[in-house]
Amino acid sequence: MRLADLPTPCLVLDRGVLARNIRAMAGSLARLGVPLRPHMKTAKSIDVARMALVGQPGGITVSTLAEAEYFVGHGITDILYAVGITPQKLDHVAQLNAAGADIIVITDDPDMASAIAAHATPPRALIEVDCGEERGGVTPDSPALLDLAARLGPYLVGVMTHAGHSYAGRSTIDMARIAEQERAAITRAATRLREAGHAITIVSAGSSPTALHAENLAGVTEMRAGVYMFGDLFQAEIETHAMDGIAVTVLTSVIGRRPGKVLVDAGGLALSKDRSTEAAPRDYGFGLVLDASGRPGYGDALVKRAYQEHGVIEFDPARPIDLPVGGRLRIAPNHTCMTVAAHDRYFVVDGEDEVVAIWTRVNGW
Amino acid sequence: MRLADLPTPCLVLDRGVLARNIRAMAGSLARLGVPLRPHMKTAKSIDVARMALVGQPGGITVSTLAEAEYFVGHGITDILYAVGITPQKLDHVAQLNAAGADIIVITDDPDMASAIAAHATPPRALIEVDCGEERGGVTPDSPALLDLAARLGPYLVGVMTHAGHSYAGRSTIDMARIAEQERAAITRAATRLREAGHAITIVSAGSSPTALHAENLAGVTEMRAGVYMFGDLFQAEIETHAMDGIAVTVLTSVIGRRPGKVLVDAGGLALSKDRSTEAAPRDYGFGLVLDASGRPGYGDALVKRAYQEHGVIEFDPARPIDLPVGGRLRIAPNHTCMTVAAHDRYFVVDGEDEVVAIWTRVNGW
Repeated sequence: MRLADLPTPCLVLDRGVLARNIRAMAGSLARLGVPLRPHMKTAKSIDVARMALVGQPGGITVSTLAEAEYFVGHGITDILYAVGITPQKLDHVAQLNAAGADIIVITDDPDMASAIAAHATPPRALIEVDCGEERGGVTPDSPALLDLAARLGPYLVGVMTHAGHSYAGRSTIDMARIAEQERAAITRAATRLREAGHAITIVSAGSSPTALHAENLAGVTEMRAGVYMFGDLFQAEIETHAMDGIAVTVLTSVIGRRPGKVLVDAGGLALSKDRSTEAAPRDYGFGLVLDASGRPGYGDALVKRAYQEHGVIEFDPARPIDLPVGGRLRIAPNHTCMTVAAHDRYFVVDGEDEVVAIWTRVNGW
Repeated sequence: MRLADLPTPCLVLDRGVLARNIRAMAGSLARLGVPLRPHMKTAKSIDVARMALVGQPGGITVSTLAEAEYFVGHGITDILYAVGITPQKLDHVAQLNAAGADIIVITDDPDMASAIAAHATPPRALIEVDCGEERGGVTPDSPALLDLAARLGPYLVGVMTHAGHSYAGRSTIDMARIAEQERAAITRAATRLREAGHAITIVSAGSSPTALHAENLAGVTEMRAGVYMFGDLFQAEIETHAMDGIAVTVLTSVIGRRPGKVLVDAGGLALSKDRSTEAAPRDYGFGLVLDASGRPGYGDALVKRAYQEHGVIEFDPARPIDLPVGGRLRIAPNHTCMTVAAHDRYFVVDGEDEVVAIWTRVNGW
């Protein structure tokens, strides 16, 4: 099967670019002596997980229990569910753990910490720490940290944080600074808990930018990162990878031609309505237009508007897109986590137009 | 099963509100003597289609061939695929039609029109006409209209248009004006084609706002509309329906509490990143917060930020959201077509908390 045979819109995943991104992350962390617990929230695919786990201990991170169940079904048992647990989800985790999984949960809430310890079969738990993102977590110097630990009792095995604010960084220097902030916060929390007599074995941190650009991870036992595998226009803008590091694109067909623009069959559902690059140095609209081989070929042409199933590509009249209806383009995504989530499979290529594999992914909750 | 038993995030569909929206549309069009070809691009569910088809001829509109295949599998054969056809998709349509479907395609492209007529088993086709949206379609007075008709030959059965620019209207008076513009354009195209000797039996128009607010549809043989079934905050803002006309909400659980805000498990995937109301009189962020029963109860509280699996609800300190972790809320969506697309089923209620049915939907392409 070749790309020209595929129905559109669909996802094209370049295995060579993916492998390069995975090697870059592994190399970066190996230099600092810290293993990776890859975050599968972006790829949601066992085939991608197997690549990301080469040379790593074997644990992964997930963002939904649907992911947890899928990966358990594929033999991965060491799973960190990195979104705050609720009482109802705790029951679901207990069921999966009873069936052989070892899902670790997180919380930053005192009542929830007590509920974990009071459960019939409590999972291992981490306290979520805020290192500056101001989304979830308690601050490392807060009294709440020790209160949570006391409530979790023997089920507490560590701490975790996520420097999501690294996405607001705009250079590798910014990223290194935020990585140090992340490290300082999580190791401070671990130290306080150990001083209070708690056995802290997991000190987990990470985001793609900080995992790639950290200069020192002393005291951190594992890093988590996910979007680095696929990359996207936003990550390229903030220097997580180069522009040729985007492994996933959306293959689309021209469905109409009008003066100065073409309509394609990749719209708001196939590309997502994410507009991350609105806040980046360069705004890529709903995606950058590449040729059918995934290479630049249409200058700065962007998907400027996205209806449900229609994308509108506007082009420089000096560089028109001269394709018939049915002609193919590829669109590099703004934010790959959002874009891939509308699709149920990847058509895998290796630099060429031949489809070498089809990898499924798990969506929903 | 009750709402309290459901895993979150998930979609809650209120059958009573849905039925009321469907009755309102049917009544509006019945007064003008025009049947409805409901657009299933929003609901993508056979159960919803059956409700929308009561008292109508039985044909539907779809936005993807995955929808077409799904509805054919459920016994609906008269299907208008209302996105410009491509050569490859024409083969797929021909396969479905050979298996008993009667899928009608659309085009505005001369080469594609020739390709339709030259196909081994051409489907019936409509010419797409632009009534002012400036997305797809030829203008009703253009020479291109007659050229397309000549190329399609006997496979031409009609014309279609979509007043998508009605979404830029901000009152029922605006909608009525745009509806008349839509009607004038499509009937003008039909008249020109008939004068040129073509048999035009389908004169198809529509969008939810224009179908509901048209005052005259003389010459139009069918209207298409979809989002009216479910409604959303944007449609409420532009007066397609009242605020209590939103039939679908996202059930979510509190996963964290911080001063002045709560975190919930409905983020950018469960709600979509659509920001339609940014351009509306009132901006609802990523959704309006309702109580677990779907009723207003938290004032103006909105989902202000949406990460992949985290929504951040900020509240007025005078009206705090006092719920424990695991407590339930419902979120009214900005743009329902985008929000529901991340989910594979509806949990159906009828005003109360009991789940009376589970309806599946078809996603992807």
